[in-house]
Amino acid sequence: MPTTAYNRISGQSLERIAALSDGVFAVAMTLLVLDLHAPAAEAIHSEGELWQKLLPLLPRLLAYLMSFLTLGIFWMGQQTQLNHFERADRNLAWVHLGFLFAVTLLPFTTTLLAEFIEYRSALLLYWLNIVLLGAMLVGSWLYASRHGVVKQDAPPELNRLMLGRVIVAQSLYAFGAALCLFSTYLSIGFIVLIQLHYAIAPRTSRLLRY
Amino acid sequence: MPTTAYNRISGQSLERIAALSDGVFAVAMTLLVLDLHAPAAEAIHSEGELWQKLLPLLPRLLAYLMSFLTLGIFWMGQQTQLNHFERADRNLAWVHLGFLFAVTLLPFTTTLLAEFIEYRSALLLYWLNIVLLGAMLVGSWLYASRHGVVKQDAPPELNRLMLGRVIVAQSLYAFGAALCLFSTYLSIGFIVLIQLHYAIAPRTSRLLRY
Amino acid sequence: MPTTAYNRISGQSLERIAALSDGVFAVAMTLLVLDLHAPAAEAIHSEGELWQKLLPLLPRLLAYLMSFLTLGIFWMGQQTQLNHFERADRNLAWVHLGFLFAVTLLPFTTTLLAEFIEYRSALLLYWLNIVLLGAMLVGSWLYASRHGVVKQDAPPELNRLMLGRVIVAQSLYAFGAALCLFSTYLSIGFIVLIQLHYAIAPRTSRLLRY
Amino acid sequence: MPTTAYNRISGQSLERIAALSDGVFAVAMTLLVLDLHAPAAEAIHSEGELWQKLLPLLPRLLAYLMSFLTLGIFWMGQQTQLNHFERADRNLAWVHLGFLFAVTLLPFTTTLLAEFIEYRSALLLYWLNIVLLGAMLVGSWLYASRHGVVKQDAPPELNRLMLGRVIVAQSLYAFGAALCLFSTYLSIGFIVLIQLHYAIAPRTSRLLRY
Repeated sequence: MPTTAYNRISGQSLERIAALSDGVFAVAMTLLVLDLHAPAAEAIHSEGELWQKLLPLLPRLLAYLMSFLTLGIFWMGQQTQLNHFERADRNLAWVHLGFLFAVTLLPFTTTLLAEFIEYRSALLLYWLNIVLLGAMLVGSWLYASRHGVVKQDAPPELNRLMLGRVIVAQSLYAFGAALCLFSTYLSIGFIVLIQLHYAIAPRTSRLLRY
Repeated sequence: MPTTAYNRISGQSLERIAALSDGVFAVAMTLLVLDLHAPAAEAIHSEGELWQKLLPLLPRLLAYLMSFLTLGIFWMGQQTQLNHFERADRNLAWVHLGFLFAVTLLPFTTTLLAEFIEYRSALLLYWLNIVLLGAMLVGSWLYASRHGVVKQDAPPELNRLMLGRVIVAQSLYAFGAALCLFSTYLSIGFIVLIQLHYAIAPRTSRLLRY
Repeated sequence: MPTTAYNRISGQSLERIAALSDGVFAVAMTLLVLDLHAPAAEAIHSEGELWQKLLPLLPRLLAYLMSFLTLGIFWMGQQTQLNHFERADRNLAWVHLGFLFAVTLLPFTTTLLAEFIEYRSALLLYWLNIVLLGAMLVGSWLYASRHGVVKQDAPPELNRLMLGRVIVAQSLYAFGAALCLFSTYLSIGFIVLIQLHYAIAPRTSRLLRY
Repeated sequence: MPTTAYNRISGQSLERIAALSDGVFAVAMTLLVLDLHAPAAEAIHSEGELWQKLLPLLPRLLAYLMSFLTLGIFWMGQQTQLNHFERADRNLAWVHLGFLFAVTLLPFTTTLLAEFIEYRSALLLYWLNIVLLGAMLVGSWLYASRHGVVKQDAPPELNRLMLGRVIVAQSLYAFGAALCLFSTYLSIGFIVLIQLHYAIAPRTSRLLRY
């Protein structure tokens, strides 16, 4: 089997991992909001009553916004990795399938958190989901950098930056989760701050800017 | 990191923003219609009874058609922008993730509007959703044109056309929403007319024709 | 705006119409089967009882299979057209968005048909859905062939074949729907036969073989 | 119709089969987990009670993990085939649509298995779903290798490897299903072992490594 053909095949695999991932992320992102139910029409007879029924949806909306941020951050993280890969192989595909499994769990852990916002168990399960997402990305990078999957023209400091970024983020998440000893609201607030930082704060390294 | 590699990576990012967007739009479009429930079989014993149960679904079907038009218009607007971009970066990706968040909210605000078609609150929330969609597209364009993301060969009048189009459309939507002071039906009728105009009316500028 | 840039942009539009369509078809196809509910565990105490509860799902499964065939046929028909297009423009995109709207309605009309399999109204609505799908494809082809969207190297007889195929198919569907004057089961049986013909029967023309 | 145009068209078809498949797999994978319902908030008043309600979800989570593995294995299997194809034609597309129909059935058979984990009927239906998936992949390969769809530069032993792999896997699945004569738990355990083997065990042939 000539090398050119092999590379072409592998390249397509990388594309299909990306395509499947985009699909899973798209469905998960849309399903997140699906649990926002409109109140039943029979129980409502005035504008005031409608607002009264809509207000309790606000914390739920915030929980979904938080999970949308989570999905956005990890979508971006996976994309950055895939952009630096030259090809994919079967093992790498399975690591990313594991990553996608963690993605599909997020609508469930989010609903759980939105429903039981004062329960530490709900928060811990949500956090475990984030840990799983991070672990899979670390696994993907470690595998890729050890099996020559990373592009030749990638800058030498990429390895340090890529792992460093996940480790810092996960440490912050762990600290945020630990805050539930005091209050789950404190935990959630801290986690949202971390996520907003990753979404909108200025980047320290040019390399991670895409 | 050589420029060529950087451009290649950024190009792929642009593709993946497009792919994720197509996924989110596809799911949102299909979910819109998911709320059209077939009537329960037990309550129906003749063709006449079936029609009687189906007729009340008509306003709901119209609300979904309106939202499908909304999604179509904004899908087209986003696509036109992405077509003029040369590359994507992290910040631009986040603006588009914000745009997609607004997209995922539309099935909720649509159901709310269909359920409470005579309530101004429902109409205002629906309108806010459209405002959010428009604001994100404006933000995307402003960011892109200020950070050199727009393709070099784009015509000079593109900037004026792109912003002008959104501002005109949003002014019309705002006027339509304000009509709810008189009647929400008037508002909805006016908004549908705006949308049909954008979907089928002849274009004044060749530049916006794709 | 140089012609090359314009063509590149239009080409991407065509790709995104295809991508959005694949997404909508994928969601619609998967949602079709979502209405197959597993029986409630509490009501079942033996293997025999489980079979007894599963058997009534069979006509529903057949209705879904029929709709999956419908979606498959129209996905293929749209794809054949898009393959012959050189570029897309705004109007063409809107025709295809209309086509996709008809696609998203199919899970609803299918559930309706599965629930009210002996009601002519349900069958007529299902048939109207198929007519709408066909009409949009005809509209797409007419627009494309009149506005120079069809590739230059397309064979001259393509126009006749493309329209002829849809007209023959739609005439058969109309005849099938009319059979509901005698029995809706007869209609459904005939429609399934048409669809199986289009899915597996030998093609008379080489041109339509992809 | 010149050969170049024909090849280009067919190539795009192959891409769109892949795109539709990625979409269907993405939706099916995400829907699998959708049946994990958060317990109702009213019934729960302490962390202990929440855990008590979450624990019964564990076997269900395992059933979903098993089906996610199934989908991952068959997604990979289909991808490997498509990577070796040079083009697609109408018949091949229909075989893959049949394959996708089997994919969309999996969320249903999975829910059935999760709900009736001690019932042989549920296990047999789940197994039949796997058989259908395998049969479609075999059909795809047989059609492709007999109609010159396989790439010219594919190694000669590919045919033997491709069929051998499916036959071995399906024999193991059949054996696993037969174990339900003793216990459905034994069956499920065995099937999960087969799947973990295909997901993480070292490959014996380099050719199947992507």
